[in-house]
Amino acid sequence: MEILTLCEVGLRDGLQNEARVVETETKLDLLDGLIEAGLTYIETSSYVRPSAVPQMADSDLMMREATAAYPQPPNRFTGLVFNDKGYDRALASGCRSIAIAMTVTESFCNANNRMTMAQSMAISRRLVERAHRDGIWVRIYLSTAWVCPFEGYTPPQKTIGMAEEVWSWGIDELSIADTIGFASPLDVGKLMETLGRRLDMSKLAVHLHDTQAMGLANVTTALQAGVRIVDSSIGGLGGCPFAPGAAGNLATEDVLLLAYKLNMHTGVDLEKLMTLLPTLENGVGHPVGGRIRAWWESRSQNLEVLS
Amino acid sequence: MEILTLCEVGLRDGLQNEARVVETETKLDLLDGLIEAGLTYIETSSYVRPSAVPQMADSDLMMREATAAYPQPPNRFTGLVFNDKGYDRALASGCRSIAIAMTVTESFCNANNRMTMAQSMAISRRLVERAHRDGIWVRIYLSTAWVCPFEGYTPPQKTIGMAEEVWSWGIDELSIADTIGFASPLDVGKLMETLGRRLDMSKLAVHLHDTQAMGLANVTTALQAGVRIVDSSIGGLGGCPFAPGAAGNLATEDVLLLAYKLNMHTGVDLEKLMTLLPTLENGVGHPVGGRIRAWWESRSQNLEVLS
Repeated sequence: MEILTLCEVGLRDGLQNEARVVETETKLDLLDGLIEAGLTYIETSSYVRPSAVPQMADSDLMMREATAAYPQPPNRFTGLVFNDKGYDRALASGCRSIAIAMTVTESFCNANNRMTMAQSMAISRRLVERAHRDGIWVRIYLSTAWVCPFEGYTPPQKTIGMAEEVWSWGIDELSIADTIGFASPLDVGKLMETLGRRLDMSKLAVHLHDTQAMGLANVTTALQAGVRIVDSSIGGLGGCPFAPGAAGNLATEDVLLLAYKLNMHTGVDLEKLMTLLPTLENGVGHPVGGRIRAWWESRSQNLEVLS
Repeated sequence: MEILTLCEVGLRDGLQNEARVVETETKLDLLDGLIEAGLTYIETSSYVRPSAVPQMADSDLMMREATAAYPQPPNRFTGLVFNDKGYDRALASGCRSIAIAMTVTESFCNANNRMTMAQSMAISRRLVERAHRDGIWVRIYLSTAWVCPFEGYTPPQKTIGMAEEVWSWGIDELSIADTIGFASPLDVGKLMETLGRRLDMSKLAVHLHDTQAMGLANVTTALQAGVRIVDSSIGGLGGCPFAPGAAGNLATEDVLLLAYKLNMHTGVDLEKLMTLLPTLENGVGHPVGGRIRAWWESRSQNLEVLS
């Protein structure tokens, strides 16, 4: 049976986009629930300025609590880092696995990272070097890998070139991101296949958003290409609070049902995961749920539930 | 540019499952709207007993109106036929393209067609012979091709064997159906690839349901395999009226957006299609809409709408 690793990003990529700042207590309850459901690889923190992203103001605390409560492998808690100051905070709060956010297109880099790509490249490289010295595990995200909200389609050569460059730094994992959820399924499969051939497929992840409802189709072609690490977000969090499911991350429950159907082992229990949705809804103050929720709640019990 | 043919089944497979019997007037308005949006291949009728399926009681009238209003090719209006009596009604109402519903699994055949597979095989073969004599175009549906609600997974050899058998009768099109929407994406691609190699890919269609939200993933793998005819239903009709989108057909608007993204030409205008949803909602009395609707209604206008 093939193994599929899910990287749960709801507590970070999900909650950072919410209008309401979710209480730390609720986040910790969710963290416990995610672990209980079988998730072990969870992005808990983003070391940005609290004034810029108040939703992530408790990132240091979340990391400290997570690593204290679940110190053993395979548990891995990542924190997003943009600069040296964030890196320092990460280390100080017990983080042993950082994620560095980079962008393939100049205009999105300017808007999101507030720096030029040249600056981002230099800083990220320095962060990787620091991590190597400190024995810290490193993931890099490549945003706008297929489509940029400002520049439209991203030429594959651009993403491939950048992937090869950052790969040469000796990182542990590379997550290729469809930041706005506009990638087309065949493009996702094609690019991941190319990257897998040139780099190391076992260390490549896809980070998909479900804006246009292509999330499950896109992850399917990524899996076909051989990708075995998928980022996802419980409840499909990550989108506009006024259009649930409209622009969020690929939902963890959706990719989990797909994994069951493809006979891939994730170690995650869909039934347990689904019990967390009410807590999540109370926390964010609006309905959540991936594409499978309507089926899940109306499924007839005389059919084998997960087939 | 590749051509993708959409077979619109909302007026038949969609409306037959609705609690409310939609008025003929509304159906005719929808028919006009579908044609106006660019759809030319539309299943309008099911020649079943009106007492058994009151939603389809106006099938003869619908066929008469459709063929009178849009007599020229490429317009094609199909009517579902189960037996000689249905065939007679089809011809009498001006139908020149019939669809015969067959089933791969015995128990579903008994429940749906109310006959044994041997009986269904004999009757269907006779109907095909009659159609050949009358110069009538013939499509056959193979239901439960991947999963049967009573028997679970359908062994691929069973579907392949039956497909080869009915193919040998000299039919014009064969639609392979995931009747309850439980097929897995890799299984869909694999089976269609095999059938395409053994039969004629240009005459194979997929008929998918979106119960578990796998519709877009499943049609993606079918397209990868080379399938170029896809059945779909406006608004994702076809499911339980109390769980919109939960168990309906693959929505026409969903596969249409996918086609735009894959640069496949369907001749159908998504913008026009979406304007029909309010009429449809009034007709059936509940919200409708495929998976893309939330995005469609919240999309920001500074992004190229269809990319």
